[in-house]
Amino acid sequence: MKLYGFWRSLATFRVRIALNLKAIPFEETVVDLLQGQQFAPGYRSVNPQSVVPALFDGDGPPLFQSLAILEYLDETHPEPPLLPREARARARVRGLAQITACDVHPLIVPRIRNYLGNELKIDEPQRLKWIRHWFDEGSRSIEAHLAGELETGRFCHGDRPTLADVCIASHAVGAQFFECDPTPFPTLHGIVAECFKLDAFVRAHPLKQPGAKPH
Amino acid sequence: MKLYGFWRSLATFRVRIALNLKAIPFEETVVDLLQGQQFAPGYRSVNPQSVVPALFDGDGPPLFQSLAILEYLDETHPEPPLLPREARARARVRGLAQITACDVHPLIVPRIRNYLGNELKIDEPQRLKWIRHWFDEGSRSIEAHLAGELETGRFCHGDRPTLADVCIASHAVGAQFFECDPTPFPTLHGIVAECFKLDAFVRAHPLKQPGAKPH
Repeated sequence: MKLYGFWRSLATFRVRIALNLKAIPFEETVVDLLQGQQFAPGYRSVNPQSVVPALFDGDGPPLFQSLAILEYLDETHPEPPLLPREARARARVRGLAQITACDVHPLIVPRIRNYLGNELKIDEPQRLKWIRHWFDEGSRSIEAHLAGELETGRFCHGDRPTLADVCIASHAVGAQFFECDPTPFPTLHGIVAECFKLDAFVRAHPLKQPGAKPH
Repeated sequence: MKLYGFWRSLATFRVRIALNLKAIPFEETVVDLLQGQQFAPGYRSVNPQSVVPALFDGDGPPLFQSLAILEYLDETHPEPPLLPREARARARVRGLAQITACDVHPLIVPRIRNYLGNELKIDEPQRLKWIRHWFDEGSRSIEAHLAGELETGRFCHGDRPTLADVCIASHAVGAQFFECDPTPFPTLHGIVAECFKLDAFVRAHPLKQPGAKPH
């Protein structure tokens, strides 16, 4: 498979983890979001939304949106499964994944930070406060679920990693980039620590990718 | 089933459409987001994220996150299906749904508008510009997919409504609330017009719910 991504992209990170968990070989082409390569006409023809990731499986058409790609990978490469079998369990895993992939991550991506700065003239400290606020809101919701529900195990749902863990690992890494305080969310961060005992998560980490720069 | 929702909530609207399409009987309990009822301890115990919708199927636990609920409904009540059968087609439908449910809607919900106003002191015209900007960005991406891809039919993917249509209908209704210009997006709005020929969409419309107020 051929992945279009960027080292800093948390959505690309999610897809990379899933590819690694399923041992699917892939090559990654860099779309440098900091240089605006996502807006080049060539990439727009791959993904009209001008965002990463996009994934080619064979001749295409390209797959888009990280959660849709994760489900596709799980349907086409069922082992190891990233969703439990039972419908209610699947809903819980998807719901946990979506708390961060839908309600946190889209609020902190570069296009939002740029709009806050360029259009609304919000300064850097206030932008950082915005980012941390939404990470913390997401962490609070996820922690309440994980700490309060019997289905939580070594991972978010039982003792094997699921889509929820993939997304929560990307959440925690993003929160760490922006120096959010992890201490109020011990269950979440305990599970993320379990994730990073697995090579599939470690190798997918943003800072392990070509061109990565710790800030 | 028992749905916790609010007339204005586009995410509740999505779940209502799916329940209607599948002819699943449900009762809706109002969580008045304008009065802050989502933050009451009673509702927090239903949904720790303090957002709507939440859905009870029997004795619970409550289901949360609208896209996860839509998938649950499709898995437990397969007819009529809201996803095609083939993996690549399912990925396209989910991807289209997520462009708006993940990358537009979370940017314009009340908690964001409140933060922009209360924390960042952004005035109402600039808030409205923010809202329209993100609706338009989403519409542009969705239009590019729908207008450029052979799979588009009477609906987003072929000739039956799918999860993508459910989400795109909510997108269009949201855009209309905020008086976004629909004319640059004819394919999108043509499909939405097809959706609103179906009673399941019409009955689910925010302005048809108890307490609804056109602004």
